[in-house]
Amino acid sequence: MSAAQVYGLGVGPGDPELLTLKALRLLRAAPVIAYPAPETGDSFARSIVAPHLPGGQKEIAIRMPIGDGSFPKADIYDRAARDILSEVRAGRDVAVLCEGDPFFYGSFMYLHARLARDCTISIVPGVSSLMACAAMAGVPLSARNESLTVIPAPLPDEALRTRLVNGNAAAIVKVGRHLPRVRRVIESAGIMSRALLVERATLAEQRIRRLADVDDDSVPYFSMILIAGEGAP
Amino acid sequence: MSAAQVYGLGVGPGDPELLTLKALRLLRAAPVIAYPAPETGDSFARSIVAPHLPGGQKEIAIRMPIGDGSFPKADIYDRAARDILSEVRAGRDVAVLCEGDPFFYGSFMYLHARLARDCTISIVPGVSSLMACAAMAGVPLSARNESLTVIPAPLPDEALRTRLVNGNAAAIVKVGRHLPRVRRVIESAGIMSRALLVERATLAEQRIRRLADVDDDSVPYFSMILIAGEGAP
Repeated sequence: MSAAQVYGLGVGPGDPELLTLKALRLLRAAPVIAYPAPETGDSFARSIVAPHLPGGQKEIAIRMPIGDGSFPKADIYDRAARDILSEVRAGRDVAVLCEGDPFFYGSFMYLHARLARDCTISIVPGVSSLMACAAMAGVPLSARNESLTVIPAPLPDEALRTRLVNGNAAAIVKVGRHLPRVRRVIESAGIMSRALLVERATLAEQRIRRLADVDDDSVPYFSMILIAGEGAP
Repeated sequence: MSAAQVYGLGVGPGDPELLTLKALRLLRAAPVIAYPAPETGDSFARSIVAPHLPGGQKEIAIRMPIGDGSFPKADIYDRAARDILSEVRAGRDVAVLCEGDPFFYGSFMYLHARLARDCTISIVPGVSSLMACAAMAGVPLSARNESLTVIPAPLPDEALRTRLVNGNAAAIVKVGRHLPRVRRVIESAGIMSRALLVERATLAEQRIRRLADVDDDSVPYFSMILIAGEGAP
């Protein structure tokens, strides 16, 4: 028997059918699954794979405050890493469910940093929200030799602006409560006409609007603003 | 019967198991598949899905010179779009196979631009080479509020440099014969120690090296250079 290990499984942006065959196989075979979850209530990552779960798996919910822009609590990750490692040392593989892709602004990197020295970790890349939003909007983000910059909305105005004006296409992630401020930066950069706001891509509640038409003060944390390049065919 | 349509299917970076369940379902159901291919020889996109093909599908190979950094030939796309549209008008769905993700620097955008007014197109996002390279290298590219810039290697030195220094993490795509020049720009930007070169991610021939250790003059067109941000946990 080979040693047990950790799998970081990208489970895609929300539609359970956007799971890869590889993630599905490893998900079903794992005796233990772990996933991020809010302090109370359901885990989004777990809800994505719920239709695929075989039943009978041990579950580790990694509960923490999310969506407020603050950074993860180290002690919660320390404890989750210990729980996961004790399963692996007992010979049980642990599949960690990651919304979208494990390494695209996901919390999995905090577990990875804590576990990588002590056990084998395999990462299964997933369909990221970046690609899902562009696909659902029907908009190729960057064409030919245009650059594409992914920018977290919590960055200060000047950092946001520098990144927007020194590139071509852009995607602004983690928009949430930063919407009014981000909208002002986009307006002042003169690129509002190319901006789309995408909420809950690939889910039934998906919503896509021109940013210029949006007058909400706040949108879900996982909303994304897409700013297509000017070179689209 | 609903009208036939076009599907732009992201088939992932190379490993046939990184196809999504949705792409697999639509791929198998389509009476016609279309895919980019070199002037002679096998299509990479088709090779990715080959283990999944049910047999008996009509195939449209879109053959053109690739890998030399030049931009697509308009007449080849015009003709491919006409061929695809005539299938759709005859009531047959056409699944267009796209390496990685359809809208991440893929040639599908040229078909999309030609077909979008004349028929329904659904895009199925795929696992992109960006996420695949980071996963295989075991390196989270950007952490917390770092930006991530995707930069095509054919850009002029100064444009490359501007994008590298005005962001945090970066991925340089379409490296191929641009390797020596790109390496000089990275060296002069003082970020060589963070640069990895990834070739053929998720395939059996996958190769990952520190860029500082690479003395090749040229690498495959689909190679990628990853430059992790400095804020990784």
